[in-house]
Amino acid sequence: MTNDESKRFEIRLSGAGGQGLMLAGKLLAEAASVYDGLNAVQTQSYGPEARGGKSKTDVVISSGEIDYPKATRVNVLLAMSQPALDEYEPSLREDGMLVVDSQLVDRVERDGAIGIPFTMLAIEECGRKLFANVVALGAIGELTKAVTWASLRSAVLARVPKGTEQVNEKALNVGRDAAKRVLEGRGDG
Amino acid sequence: MTNDESKRFEIRLSGAGGQGLMLAGKLLAEAASVYDGLNAVQTQSYGPEARGGKSKTDVVISSGEIDYPKATRVNVLLAMSQPALDEYEPSLREDGMLVVDSQLVDRVERDGAIGIPFTMLAIEECGRKLFANVVALGAIGELTKAVTWASLRSAVLARVPKGTEQVNEKALNVGRDAAKRVLEGRGDG
Repeated sequence: MTNDESKRFEIRLSGAGGQGLMLAGKLLAEAASVYDGLNAVQTQSYGPEARGGKSKTDVVISSGEIDYPKATRVNVLLAMSQPALDEYEPSLREDGMLVVDSQLVDRVERDGAIGIPFTMLAIEECGRKLFANVVALGAIGELTKAVTWASLRSAVLARVPKGTEQVNEKALNVGRDAAKRVLEGRGDG
Repeated sequence: MTNDESKRFEIRLSGAGGQGLMLAGKLLAEAASVYDGLNAVQTQSYGPEARGGKSKTDVVISSGEIDYPKATRVNVLLAMSQPALDEYEPSLREDGMLVVDSQLVDRVERDGAIGIPFTMLAIEECGRKLFANVVALGAIGELTKAVTWASLRSAVLARVPKGTEQVNEKALNVGRDAAKRVLEGRGDG
């Protein structure tokens, strides 16, 4: 947890349909709850705001009870597409962390946004773009420390189809390493 | 919608892990939003309440905005296992509808509960128990009219793996027919 003010931590994963963000949210929520012993609630909204090819899931993590599952002051926003960034950037706290797929997002207004080419890394390092969600998850894990690395790894390996454990673990590590390079470049790492 | 007091309708799908309830909730939410033009929010909780093999997802459907996505006064509870029924029955409104898998739930306290052997029907009519979630969805659709049948069918057919459209449509119809028999038996149909 990077948020000392409150035990509540809100992560919004957004992008286009088909990028596997719902699964990423589920894995994050399971890492937090099943493996780290925290509480987690995952929410998806359908309807006007979710239309136009945008996809979004929110994960609220807390060491306390989660009375209000809707994300209202997002601590971390992942944007895997330009329309998702444009739509959800205003929901991010002023001191929040913005993480974008740097190959799929062209215009970023916010200072300090972190750009990592998740989809390109998935294709180049793991052979298929469908691993971009797990690459992103590895980066989010490293950047936020919202869940422990061991828990994130366990949650991913417990859920992915048999026979794909190795490539998914690689995807997770590719994301973590990319995040580490960003942090080192900033002098935070 | 069977609820005239409010535009808000809460459906809680509960059972054991592996019964496909998350997907059922997603299909219901998509039927409501993408195809019926309503708003829908789906929520999953992880943590103490979700442990012990229980699985639960809530779908809130409304023609208006959904400010509070947490289900607080559940209109319809589907229970596909005894532990799920025991845990979530208290969340059901007094005038709410309880629907249980009659082969997997043994003790039901509430008068007027609707029992349908979803899993048995899935095995006998569709060849595999993994269709039990879609059988249940067909029944919920018929019993609640929370979404139109055309929308439910479209949502299911758009999401299921290619090549399984026919058996999934059959599962949906098996659920609807079972629900119709219940309603006819009660003189509601």
